[in-house]
Amino acid sequence: MNTSSLSIACIRSLVIDQINKSKSGHPGMAIGSAPILYTLFTRHLKADPTHPKWMNRDRFILSAGHASALLYAILHVAGYDLSIDDLKQFRQLDSRTPGHPEIDVTPGVDCSSGPLGQGIAQAVGFALAEQSLKNLYPNGKNIFDHYTYCLCGDGCLQEGLSQESISFAGHQKLNKLILFYDNNNVTLDGSLDLSFSEDVKKRFEACEWEVLEVKDGNDVEEIDKAITKAKISPKPSLIIVHTVIGYGSINQGTSKVHGAPLGEEDGRRAKELYKYNYPPFTVLDEVYQDFKNTFIKRGQEKYQAWENLFNEYQKNYPQEAKKIISAQNNSVLTELYSDDPRFDVGVKEATRQTSKTILQFLHANIHNLIGGSADVAGSVYTKIPNEPFFSPEHREGRTINFGIREFAMASIQNGMLLHGGLRTYVGCFLVFADYLKPAIRMAALERIPAVYIFSHDSIAVGEDGPTHQPVEQLAMLRSIPNVEVFRPCDANEVATAYRLMFAQEDHPVCIILTRQALPTLNGTLTKDREKGGYVVSYEVKHADITIIASGSEVSLAIEAQEKLLKQGIDSRVVSMLSMERFLKQDPSYIKETLGNDYSKRITVEMLSSFGWHKFAPHVMSIDTFGASAPFEDCLKKFNFNSDELVRRIKEIL
Amino acid sequence: MNTSSLSIACIRSLVIDQINKSKSGHPGMAIGSAPILYTLFTRHLKADPTHPKWMNRDRFILSAGHASALLYAILHVAGYDLSIDDLKQFRQLDSRTPGHPEIDVTPGVDCSSGPLGQGIAQAVGFALAEQSLKNLYPNGKNIFDHYTYCLCGDGCLQEGLSQESISFAGHQKLNKLILFYDNNNVTLDGSLDLSFSEDVKKRFEACEWEVLEVKDGNDVEEIDKAITKAKISPKPSLIIVHTVIGYGSINQGTSKVHGAPLGEEDGRRAKELYKYNYPPFTVLDEVYQDFKNTFIKRGQEKYQAWENLFNEYQKNYPQEAKKIISAQNNSVLTELYSDDPRFDVGVKEATRQTSKTILQFLHANIHNLIGGSADVAGSVYTKIPNEPFFSPEHREGRTINFGIREFAMASIQNGMLLHGGLRTYVGCFLVFADYLKPAIRMAALERIPAVYIFSHDSIAVGEDGPTHQPVEQLAMLRSIPNVEVFRPCDANEVATAYRLMFAQEDHPVCIILTRQALPTLNGTLTKDREKGGYVVSYEVKHADITIIASGSEVSLAIEAQEKLLKQGIDSRVVSMLSMERFLKQDPSYIKETLGNDYSKRITVEMLSSFGWHKFAPHVMSIDTFGASAPFEDCLKKFNFNSDELVRRIKEIL
Repeated sequence: MNTSSLSIACIRSLVIDQINKSKSGHPGMAIGSAPILYTLFTRHLKADPTHPKWMNRDRFILSAGHASALLYAILHVAGYDLSIDDLKQFRQLDSRTPGHPEIDVTPGVDCSSGPLGQGIAQAVGFALAEQSLKNLYPNGKNIFDHYTYCLCGDGCLQEGLSQESISFAGHQKLNKLILFYDNNNVTLDGSLDLSFSEDVKKRFEACEWEVLEVKDGNDVEEIDKAITKAKISPKPSLIIVHTVIGYGSINQGTSKVHGAPLGEEDGRRAKELYKYNYPPFTVLDEVYQDFKNTFIKRGQEKYQAWENLFNEYQKNYPQEAKKIISAQNNSVLTELYSDDPRFDVGVKEATRQTSKTILQFLHANIHNLIGGSADVAGSVYTKIPNEPFFSPEHREGRTINFGIREFAMASIQNGMLLHGGLRTYVGCFLVFADYLKPAIRMAALERIPAVYIFSHDSIAVGEDGPTHQPVEQLAMLRSIPNVEVFRPCDANEVATAYRLMFAQEDHPVCIILTRQALPTLNGTLTKDREKGGYVVSYEVKHADITIIASGSEVSLAIEAQEKLLKQGIDSRVVSMLSMERFLKQDPSYIKETLGNDYSKRITVEMLSSFGWHKFAPHVMSIDTFGASAPFEDCLKKFNFNSDELVRRIKEIL
Repeated sequence: MNTSSLSIACIRSLVIDQINKSKSGHPGMAIGSAPILYTLFTRHLKADPTHPKWMNRDRFILSAGHASALLYAILHVAGYDLSIDDLKQFRQLDSRTPGHPEIDVTPGVDCSSGPLGQGIAQAVGFALAEQSLKNLYPNGKNIFDHYTYCLCGDGCLQEGLSQESISFAGHQKLNKLILFYDNNNVTLDGSLDLSFSEDVKKRFEACEWEVLEVKDGNDVEEIDKAITKAKISPKPSLIIVHTVIGYGSINQGTSKVHGAPLGEEDGRRAKELYKYNYPPFTVLDEVYQDFKNTFIKRGQEKYQAWENLFNEYQKNYPQEAKKIISAQNNSVLTELYSDDPRFDVGVKEATRQTSKTILQFLHANIHNLIGGSADVAGSVYTKIPNEPFFSPEHREGRTINFGIREFAMASIQNGMLLHGGLRTYVGCFLVFADYLKPAIRMAALERIPAVYIFSHDSIAVGEDGPTHQPVEQLAMLRSIPNVEVFRPCDANEVATAYRLMFAQEDHPVCIILTRQALPTLNGTLTKDREKGGYVVSYEVKHADITIIASGSEVSLAIEAQEKLLKQGIDSRVVSMLSMERFLKQDPSYIKETLGNDYSKRITVEMLSSFGWHKFAPHVMSIDTFGASAPFEDCLKKFNFNSDELVRRIKEIL
């Protein structure tokens, strides 16, 4: 048996062993794809397992995350800090080998994946980041120069997200992106032709991709040739590899090997076919040696060469080198404003307008800030003046027109952040947060500081009507673990929200903005606004009632407060800039702010009441869909005004 | 000027007038596409404006919903019950001409649209329904025989949903689906080539569509020829029509006419170019006459012919004809079970397992029930034995393999229900409710009885890990207006949930199912379970504490209750089968069930606590992401067991 056959047999056996031991997992594709990853690692992938976070390594993303056992097997034999004992803990609690790949859990895993399609989209983000970084620094082309590889199956290509991603990648000519398609003709429910018969080659060609094909997925030489060709293509490349799902199993080629362990007997049978008749978890020295001679040797040499290059770079461009290093941890370099700019009290402007001002300021001052919108830059106000769009002709562009592809936009952002070196933001209408929600969840899982700018934040959207008026979207965002949502009530709060959003590095944040103008308040000048919730108007210690409001409803609440005062009713208004942040404060501060008596509180938000009862038993909200009408008429229809709030409060008291 | 030019000029003028009057709207595509709709209506569309709900009419779906002014203009001149006064109320409160088309608001509107991509996906559902209905009844091919037309722009094609939909439609050879692509090379943020350069023709061909092209979007004869060809193609057809956005405006061909009114001056200028120099909202008699001679005449004749045919059919197939008629309003014909089947107390089975039993029973007994899953039929248990999948070869199949295309699946369901004549369901894992959420919202807006079967409903998913373990998804579903969510705790509740789900006709419903086995309880036998929430264990009038649980946590709560009782603590357990249903009950029943004292209540659900504080200040929940491990280990890690619940309750008391 030649070396590569032996190594592939070993890797396949490790897949079988992991899944058999844990009695859970997806062996089919993991076994079938083994020669792809083997060829990639031993002949092409530039990475040094002793420096798994090297910024110029090639990236590999397993979009078909259910084939995780394959990735773990190969990371082990390739010398990453992942032991046989780790493999034995496959899918066990707190192990380094979870069911689907998780970033920061396993050395060598560049990206979390599992929800189908999202690996491809994130890979596009990695490839975009590489192109962007090259042009962000003088002579950056030497420092950032790597490929992004991705492996997907049928599932990823059926998901619409894949189309958004490949159309964008083709349009952007992200030529250093290479996608393997494990074409095994089987899905969970049976044969692929039950649901899928499109011409994948043609579809990718239509989207400006290079398409290569490997007829025999066990043929290392053919896979190698395809990768070599793909690397020099001026377009992103798809390599279609025809494989046999569960190769070697008695059920090979059927859906029976998709999601169930082979079991001992069938496992032994498969290993016999591979001619790898060893006890479970055996790795022959020849296999380790194979990877040492190829992958590890190449990786270490490349790493060393790059180190030398970067040392040279540091001498020639000390400032830039410093920026490059510190940008790696996603942190925003400049202490831009420890205190927020002041806005004139009483001046009315839409919070999307203030957002525009701040965003343009950040853009001018944070050299590695890049972002864009899903074709609504002119409405969400993410346009940066005198700045070319990022494009094949303008790789230096730091604004991106993602097209009308919300989900891909957000997933690409995830990839860019995971790549490292950039800070990012993306924007669209709040109601279309629905389209990209799965990507926010992924960002939250990955603990990356993705920034979402959502404007047009209530029924005040007006004429576009119920399909365009958010109601429950804010509840949806607030309910995602590890996500922080800001809904500023005026210019001061917008500035604070931006500062807090970009100051952190470990979770996604959303800022929710109005289309309509809001007055800049006096009460928002307090430092307490950083606490997420605070008394914004009338510091009354024993108010009869606490009105808790957010965004556009804070000024409405203050209006009601004035009316109540004339009727002898003392109230306080709390601005709830961010529930999540507020709830992290000291319990005594929380209590003091809200007032002791739960029954004497009311919340006001022109969106769903869902989730607000944590703060108050009384809610003024919109719990039905909106209506198409000028926004003043909408508000009238839903009786959303300070008089109604006053009426309700008097009823409570 | 010939008749068609005059009519098109009039329609374009009505578009300009509506938008100018309301000072809001999207004139660009509405003006550009006018000849497409004109040709379709006058030469092909089979519909009778005096019978707008005729079951065998051709359907038209405006996927580019922002071009609503065009649809309203043509519906008016085509004789629908939509007056000039209605057009003058464009985008005004409670008018029949809202910002985006809304079903049941405007006669002649077959589908709500606006959120991009969803019109195309729903159109696929319409076309699928036609094919299914043909084969559902003997000689059904005569009764159901119509085309589904759809008009989209660039935005719809950029959305990934369009790819899922066209790939599915091509695979299913839905040849009576004809999609117009208004190719005007402009999006909101500017020229299309900023974000889109794919070869649309090739992409659709790759997905097994017929593709036709019309070079001049003002050429009625060319459009006519293309439609004629498309109608006889054995594949679904795309007609690419090259148009000029905002044709006639000084800003024609640019993004400036996308989303802003032309204004009086530019409007007048455009009308001059059209040679239609009349005051706003003028419709010449020649125009009405044009439609009378063509669209209306043809429609009435076709309607009459079909009426005769159906009368004949009623004679030959009286039973079937009766079924056809009553199925039109989406109602389930048979009173299948007014009382639910009984399940043996104590027997343990997963609620997905009971769901399978009930679903198969419904399938066998409801002749027009059709549904499927996103390639997880084997896990969500939506497989129907001895039933072929719906396919070009098996149009009689009543189970659909939608492929790994959750969003399209749900949108297609919407189209099928809007078509009328069928009842439906779709299924996938709860965590991937994220992918299809926008379609549930649309179903809720459309007030259609879409059914979603979501299994694998908590961290008890186990080994697949955090990307596959739902946490916040249930909150997301519950927060959507007009959606009812059921999370049954045992077999009895599953049966009830199904009965209630299929008994209604005006809103979407979700049923949330476990992967793991649950005991069948005694307390679930009460009739009160229909109320959505009820005391499931120990009818204690003055319990020390009320435990409110749902799904798999109800039996856990009962376990805790028994332990508490041994320690002298009286408690009641409330099963919250459906929050929405429970909250619609009489306030006194709600109070009685939950107990008077808000502070003496605790909720238990192994998902996010978000939204539960409406019922109790204390919550036992999962508010972080899960973990990859055998599910027992997961539960241990999160300390989710009856002992912990007992501990917390004692702390409260």
